[in-house]
Amino acid sequence: MDIRTGLPIVGMVGGGQLARMTHQAAVALGQSLRILATGPDDGAALVAADVHFGQPDDLEALRRFAKGCDVVTFDHEHVPEVHARALVADGVAVHPGPGALRHAQDKRVMRERLGALGIPVPRWRPAGTVADVVGFAEGTGWPVVVKSVRGGYDGRGVWPVDGPGAAAELLAANPGRALLVEERVPLRRELAVQVARSPFGQVAVYPVVETVQRDGICVEVLAPAPGLGAAAATRIQELAIRVATELDVVGLLAVELFQTGAPAGPDPGVVVNELAMRPHNSGHWTIEGARTSQFEQHLRAVLDYPLGETGMTAPAVALANVLGGPEGVAMPLDERLHHLFATEPGVKVHLYGKQVRPGRKIGHVTALGEDLARLRARTARAVRWLREGAAAEEPA
Amino acid sequence: MDIRTGLPIVGMVGGGQLARMTHQAAVALGQSLRILATGPDDGAALVAADVHFGQPDDLEALRRFAKGCDVVTFDHEHVPEVHARALVADGVAVHPGPGALRHAQDKRVMRERLGALGIPVPRWRPAGTVADVVGFAEGTGWPVVVKSVRGGYDGRGVWPVDGPGAAAELLAANPGRALLVEERVPLRRELAVQVARSPFGQVAVYPVVETVQRDGICVEVLAPAPGLGAAAATRIQELAIRVATELDVVGLLAVELFQTGAPAGPDPGVVVNELAMRPHNSGHWTIEGARTSQFEQHLRAVLDYPLGETGMTAPAVALANVLGGPEGVAMPLDERLHHLFATEPGVKVHLYGKQVRPGRKIGHVTALGEDLARLRARTARAVRWLREGAAAEEPA
Repeated sequence: MDIRTGLPIVGMVGGGQLARMTHQAAVALGQSLRILATGPDDGAALVAADVHFGQPDDLEALRRFAKGCDVVTFDHEHVPEVHARALVADGVAVHPGPGALRHAQDKRVMRERLGALGIPVPRWRPAGTVADVVGFAEGTGWPVVVKSVRGGYDGRGVWPVDGPGAAAELLAANPGRALLVEERVPLRRELAVQVARSPFGQVAVYPVVETVQRDGICVEVLAPAPGLGAAAATRIQELAIRVATELDVVGLLAVELFQTGAPAGPDPGVVVNELAMRPHNSGHWTIEGARTSQFEQHLRAVLDYPLGETGMTAPAVALANVLGGPEGVAMPLDERLHHLFATEPGVKVHLYGKQVRPGRKIGHVTALGEDLARLRARTARAVRWLREGAAAEEPA
Repeated sequence: MDIRTGLPIVGMVGGGQLARMTHQAAVALGQSLRILATGPDDGAALVAADVHFGQPDDLEALRRFAKGCDVVTFDHEHVPEVHARALVADGVAVHPGPGALRHAQDKRVMRERLGALGIPVPRWRPAGTVADVVGFAEGTGWPVVVKSVRGGYDGRGVWPVDGPGAAAELLAANPGRALLVEERVPLRRELAVQVARSPFGQVAVYPVVETVQRDGICVEVLAPAPGLGAAAATRIQELAIRVATELDVVGLLAVELFQTGAPAGPDPGVVVNELAMRPHNSGHWTIEGARTSQFEQHLRAVLDYPLGETGMTAPAVALANVLGGPEGVAMPLDERLHHLFATEPGVKVHLYGKQVRPGRKIGHVTALGEDLARLRARTARAVRWLREGAAAEEPA
């Protein structure tokens, strides 16, 4: 409790853009997010008042940080489960709790649990040896996908493998690393859905969105997912609520899905790809596009406040991520922003305070309106200005 | 320029809720607002990373603060004009500039200037002596309104005066204070409009709103102003643009107006009451209710970025200010917030990090939708929970 304001203190482990945007939401609720950053240049550390420093795997740093927090939550999955359990044993309110969080930290634990619940996931098995991979591929056919059980994101820790030779090479390059092998799903597209859950058990689910990936990195989010029937959308929302409830998630849960079936029928034809238990890139569109942003919702959930409305503020929302452009762009970022604003006065920009490096996610842009194709053209233009300091070609 | 991000640094003198909300907007633009606060418990100092301390009338503090800022702006009118001029002479970009800002600091200067431009203001004259007041009232009739030329806000520095005796008493109680006397306008209602202007000269104007006052304090803002005809609204917007342009305002200008005439015709029948050259309480509805918030717009304007769209995100917006409730409310603020969220999951809350004192503006709430009467009922309920820890009576 902050004695100056009479309002609770939420501590977030991790100082990246998720903490940065959660802080923005905390300010409206009368709070100031307490952040455990790894250094002063972390995106959230640049903008927040109450910043502590320490590594997420340092139990003593976590304990010092948790002192005086009403609740501790996370902007990533890097706090070891044993440390999270130690905090709970200290009496700290940790949300999501370690028993839930492990499903977002360990792809094997997650697949086993969802499988046991009858929730569809791609066929998979642990990949301790080349023989495991080859044996698995004999059932599913090549290519298969090998994944690191822990720590992958944005395409890292995920390898398509097209035969026994490639499998042998990959395993030799990753000695001692826990891996699993998964079928390559006949992918129509990728979807995602956010659901918040409070300790009281209240849930609030957002509209299902489509995520567009390039090189394993999400580059666009379209809300609501185009062409997804109402019945199919509801089934996906129910799936997300069930996962949040069965896994006892507190806070935001992002469920990333592969859609393989036809989108119009009542059966959405989806399998779960990943879970994240925090605000997630696939939910950034909610800042302007939903009545309650995922960041405010995460705070409300971990504080056991009643949850906010999740309805959309416009018929359609397009979001595009801004990845750092090629080296050698002469135009300064500030000037690129000028051009963007001149071209697109209604596009909303979110920059994360990061130094620009090629391929690094440095921000996102959002456009709201009626016609999704036009909104995507607008966000594409905006992104090209920010990436390259140049106008995008007009869409045909 | 922040060398870590390649983006400009905006310094804001004053650490109140306007700086607090401007900081939220700055974060999205990749920046972190630099704030000159008077103490660590200022609303903005509680939440921002880059906080300096000093008094707004201390030139050396202002000079230290301005060093390294790309532009200096204000969350209040308390920087003496001579200090603002000294900063300009030092080469600091000060927006709004001292030549504009004086019209928001000195009611007499403002009335003289607007009068010279042919922009309607209430009849007025300087009130150096009781005879000035009495002589003026002989022309307009009693009661009249005496105002402090400098420094009044939220009903402070404004006194209704009903006769020569009251005038004598008031002037005796304010020796040496510059005062003016003004006719009491036959008031239908109060209106306000925000306009942003950049150094380049671009302007962007928001819809005209109605402000509802109680005891001289704004308690509600209704956007757009109900029943105001399109032609009348356009005339008021044109008036605001003209004031911003003639006075060479850079940044946000809020024009507060008395409406005396019929609202439906093309002539709005308004006189200008006050000017503020910063984000203003009558524009807080833009955070959720307009495509670009007044806080982002102020930043864009003072940085000479192209301005953002000002269109509304919903047909109607109701905003209500939260004034500190009576002493002795047993329910903690945190618990009141729970009740509010349970009752009104779609109302947006903005708390300013202030200690609650009776009558003190500690936050505001906003509701968006179609039916203004219902939105007002919702914000009234929300405010009553925050003020008193009690449910409001249902509207009849």
